[in-house]
Amino acid sequence: MRTLTVELQERSYPIYIGQQLLDDQALFHRHVDSRQVMIVTNDRVAPLYLDRVKAHFEGRDVAVVVLPDGEKYKTLESADAVYEELLARRFSRTAHLIALGGGVIGDLGGFVAATYQRGIPFVQVPTTLLSQVDSSVGGKTAVNHPRGKNMIGAFYQPKCVIADMSTLDTLEDRELSAGLAEVIKYGLIRDLPFLEWLESGIEKLVARDGEALAEAVERSCRNKAEVVARDERETGERATLNLGHTFGHAVETGMGYGAILHGEAVAIGTCQAADLSERLGFLQAVDVARVISILERALLPVRPPASLNADDFLTHMAVDKKNVEGQLRVILLKALGEATLPMGVDVGLLRQTLENYGRD
Amino acid sequence: MRTLTVELQERSYPIYIGQQLLDDQALFHRHVDSRQVMIVTNDRVAPLYLDRVKAHFEGRDVAVVVLPDGEKYKTLESADAVYEELLARRFSRTAHLIALGGGVIGDLGGFVAATYQRGIPFVQVPTTLLSQVDSSVGGKTAVNHPRGKNMIGAFYQPKCVIADMSTLDTLEDRELSAGLAEVIKYGLIRDLPFLEWLESGIEKLVARDGEALAEAVERSCRNKAEVVARDERETGERATLNLGHTFGHAVETGMGYGAILHGEAVAIGTCQAADLSERLGFLQAVDVARVISILERALLPVRPPASLNADDFLTHMAVDKKNVEGQLRVILLKALGEATLPMGVDVGLLRQTLENYGRD
Repeated sequence: MRTLTVELQERSYPIYIGQQLLDDQALFHRHVDSRQVMIVTNDRVAPLYLDRVKAHFEGRDVAVVVLPDGEKYKTLESADAVYEELLARRFSRTAHLIALGGGVIGDLGGFVAATYQRGIPFVQVPTTLLSQVDSSVGGKTAVNHPRGKNMIGAFYQPKCVIADMSTLDTLEDRELSAGLAEVIKYGLIRDLPFLEWLESGIEKLVARDGEALAEAVERSCRNKAEVVARDERETGERATLNLGHTFGHAVETGMGYGAILHGEAVAIGTCQAADLSERLGFLQAVDVARVISILERALLPVRPPASLNADDFLTHMAVDKKNVEGQLRVILLKALGEATLPMGVDVGLLRQTLENYGRD
Repeated sequence: MRTLTVELQERSYPIYIGQQLLDDQALFHRHVDSRQVMIVTNDRVAPLYLDRVKAHFEGRDVAVVVLPDGEKYKTLESADAVYEELLARRFSRTAHLIALGGGVIGDLGGFVAATYQRGIPFVQVPTTLLSQVDSSVGGKTAVNHPRGKNMIGAFYQPKCVIADMSTLDTLEDRELSAGLAEVIKYGLIRDLPFLEWLESGIEKLVARDGEALAEAVERSCRNKAEVVARDERETGERATLNLGHTFGHAVETGMGYGAILHGEAVAIGTCQAADLSERLGFLQAVDVARVISILERALLPVRPPASLNADDFLTHMAVDKKNVEGQLRVILLKALGEATLPMGVDVGLLRQTLENYGRD
């Protein structure tokens, strides 16, 4: 088992990465010591893993909410279903919440934990690559609003993250690739050696080589933990983790939640960000080609959907959280391995990217 | 103008108390420096004060949400109406939110500020005595759930609190009294000299003597600020601020939100807590009589409603946030001017209070 720490003073917490951690009862007991335990999961994860987690809490007061699978259920209504069960069971604010699933469950479970009785302890048990390398670490919790993704949320750190690599065995290929989009992101924004390691053999990750995946998850989490430790509430550097996300959110919003995976949208957005970085003179054409190539080798989409035109993008990008009072701001690449902070961009250049990149 | 500070390191903020502060443009500009400004208020406060606050922000991008007045609108649905307007106006996370109104508006506005895009700055402008001395200070934000009051919320501190005493001129008598319940509470739980000052002439407060009210608000806020500075997230001492509230919430829930004012319910609950404190040998009969007397002189109800029996109370009290895993815990008085921490109580004794106090 590999163990990292997210350093946040009194809110510091460990990330555990390893095989078969779902069966590690001592690990669960160490971080979930309450009599009342709420497990939030979805109807795809529950048949696979719920019983193994529940087994650790025999004799305790265990409640379970199984939501339908999918981003479109990451809503206030789903959160309310969990509140309802917590209250029906009279769970107090010492109760612990376990979020067992991918990013949707982690974000939503975390948001409920952040807001139930003004905050109860919670544990992230991410079961997808994307949530293991990104959303389970760092305390961003949220639900979506019909007008925008993650628009309602809170910063709220978990007590620990338990990333069981063996849960990746049941992941669909498409979701594995979606996770790789965020893995590649860490290389692009701040870790050139990691990018080069990925370029040296990303096919091993696509083929689910266990050791390679554990290494990729650890290096990703290490990058994320460093960034979060320095900028928990995203007043600066943390925003670089959103490379490709402003474009990507527009893709997700424009296509409707659930039509495209978050990581797929990020892959497309990353290519658009690289294209715009080249138009600003930060990247060379060869760099952009490397960005596109590594994403393609991870079996990710790299072109914006034909159904969304430049105006659609501009509309959806206008509500992104990185914007400041109407000024559109995006993360770009100064070089491979180095991101800019969110920067206002010339709308003319942005439009060139939106109208030209991937549209031929 | 009197100025106090709530000391919370980087989250410290001032409380301003004075006459006609709503017209103090410099004060508003000092704390609301964004181009986008959202004012949340209700349909009773808006006709009285909205224009005066709006006038400070001419030329800026000002949005207003006017909710119906009343505790029963302190819901996720009302919060969603504010999210909707923030998103429709494309407000970014640098936008500032002003909560202009009583406790309901402050709690709900604060909750929206805490959760919109994971947190935007907000300013409390309390216009009732109760919100000036209690709910606007300390960062507790919340909405109600059909199963319990304040069950969904967050700890989230405002940038400042602007308490304009002249807004109390338009307050109904019943609401002024409701605010006095919380004022009296500070004397009972930790400030015997303040209790004695109140006993020496609470009629001045009931008669709205401006100087006396300003003194009462300042001393109340000073007590609250001290407690919050020592225990922001209510792991200990802060819970003493909830004297009478576990009983009081049961009254509110049992009668339906809006049938009774929060301060009125707290007054009844404080008498019940005093009665139970006597049964435990903490207080003498003469102390309990003093508690009842000062609340009666503030024109507050001191007996539980006949429509709620002991079992109703026990049911509604069972979901209180101070409970720990099913163990009912309440704040009691060790003496006048000294509260206990939340303590588990013998259900037999509690039932005696619920069946006997104020039931003759």
